[in-house]
Amino acid sequence: MASEPFADFLHSFKADRQHGASELARQALAWLQHSVAEAGRCDEVVRHTLLDQVNQLCAARPSMSVIGHLLQRWQRHLVTLDNCTDAAELLVASAEQLSVLSLEAVGGCVHHARPLISPGHTLLTHSCSSTLMRLFSSLREAACHIVVCESRPLNEGVAVARQLNDWNIPCTLITDAQAGLYTAQADLVMVGADSLLGDGAVVNKVGTRLLALAAQRDHCPFYVVAESFKQRPPSADALILEQMDVAELNHDLPHEQMANTYFDITETDLISAWVDERGVHRQFSPVVW
Amino acid sequence: MASEPFADFLHSFKADRQHGASELARQALAWLQHSVAEAGRCDEVVRHTLLDQVNQLCAARPSMSVIGHLLQRWQRHLVTLDNCTDAAELLVASAEQLSVLSLEAVGGCVHHARPLISPGHTLLTHSCSSTLMRLFSSLREAACHIVVCESRPLNEGVAVARQLNDWNIPCTLITDAQAGLYTAQADLVMVGADSLLGDGAVVNKVGTRLLALAAQRDHCPFYVVAESFKQRPPSADALILEQMDVAELNHDLPHEQMANTYFDITETDLISAWVDERGVHRQFSPVVW
Repeated sequence: MASEPFADFLHSFKADRQHGASELARQALAWLQHSVAEAGRCDEVVRHTLLDQVNQLCAARPSMSVIGHLLQRWQRHLVTLDNCTDAAELLVASAEQLSVLSLEAVGGCVHHARPLISPGHTLLTHSCSSTLMRLFSSLREAACHIVVCESRPLNEGVAVARQLNDWNIPCTLITDAQAGLYTAQADLVMVGADSLLGDGAVVNKVGTRLLALAAQRDHCPFYVVAESFKQRPPSADALILEQMDVAELNHDLPHEQMANTYFDITETDLISAWVDERGVHRQFSPVVW
Repeated sequence: MASEPFADFLHSFKADRQHGASELARQALAWLQHSVAEAGRCDEVVRHTLLDQVNQLCAARPSMSVIGHLLQRWQRHLVTLDNCTDAAELLVASAEQLSVLSLEAVGGCVHHARPLISPGHTLLTHSCSSTLMRLFSSLREAACHIVVCESRPLNEGVAVARQLNDWNIPCTLITDAQAGLYTAQADLVMVGADSLLGDGAVVNKVGTRLLALAAQRDHCPFYVVAESFKQRPPSADALILEQMDVAELNHDLPHEQMANTYFDITETDLISAWVDERGVHRQFSPVVW
């Protein structure tokens, strides 16, 4: 990866629709880790380049706080380390450690979310969350039924349905508009998150808010499963909901007459509980910064 | 049309995704009108055939009460008329008259709905309603902005956006999942209906319920524009929400793992007002049967 020019990496990082926020954050850490390893030193020039890359990576996916969270933690080491022979090694180790922490946090989420699902449950979900996919993989013998919204425009839900098929987990793929037909019959809704705002409101793939509104209306519990790294620092700038290319809608209309906002914000009172690596929180539990 | 075999007409009537409920009801009346005109008499055999066709046409689109409503009114004449020389003529005239009444009712809806929209308003709508299209055609000089949900799976909203373009009415096409991003900024939501249930709940293209939930949440008025012929008779059988071919979703998944329910039911308390040919009703106003 290190030999790939940064511009190329940034381009695919920006365009990536297949991987969730946590996975992209770890990809960014891996990029930085390999960059510093390749440089083999951490002088003023290298540090300047890396700081610039951190800023560009954070700005590339502004709706995904976990990227900023992990990269800013790594950046603290970058700016405090002097130009010593150990600096590069320490930075490599730090990126590796943050990546491991991220993975462990995802594992913790899965551990705490699993008991919320009972055998025979019908579960409704939206889009594709790698955290939830790890959870679903544990449902192979649970006789559960998973209803998946397709998640326009690029229909990540279809990949989820295919994976569930491979695991022999009964599933039904629906259009996003059908979500309101299923909340009354589902036992629970479970979604991942791209970011958690300061009050616990959830930034996730667009359509999540509508699903949460229907769940509340139909008294169906609505759970958000997201490691605490996804919490947005109180100091963060105003959240930007990413707009993607309207060509993704695949309609023959003038581009200025279509909109393709990728995320929406689900308000706190629509959420039954937040599940993170620390447990299940009926009230939002902010981390200490 | 009369020379076209009934089976062919019924097939295209069932498969029609382009026309709304009122228009399909008038198509059915036109079919019956031409059938009886072609027969030129109304003896036992013709009456039996026509009754059978009425039943099949009503059953073909069970979510669209207006078809049953108008055809059953026509059927009353059919069963009360004796085999006299005038019977066929009277039935032709009756079908014609019901069709005119239907069109006038649609015109009345447009008349009463128009004052709800002020110059500069942003209006959010879902799917394609021929009643609303007549209304929108009157907004050419109103400096309004119309946001249209695409309405998966067959995206009738795209045709709406194209027509608005032709009329030079500013519009934005969005995926159904984005509806929850627009209710906070829209001045009103306006939809048509396929049927109105006995308590005023609205059967309309799937996604309408989610839109109504978001509108209520964001204090955006939610208007239903539908002539009283769309009210479902109290004697009607339990409503069937039509399931269409899942191939319409256009995903490479086993057919039994997809669902394609075409309609949903929006509950009465989510509706700000019902607009019909009699006026704007803040409380649902059932017709006398």
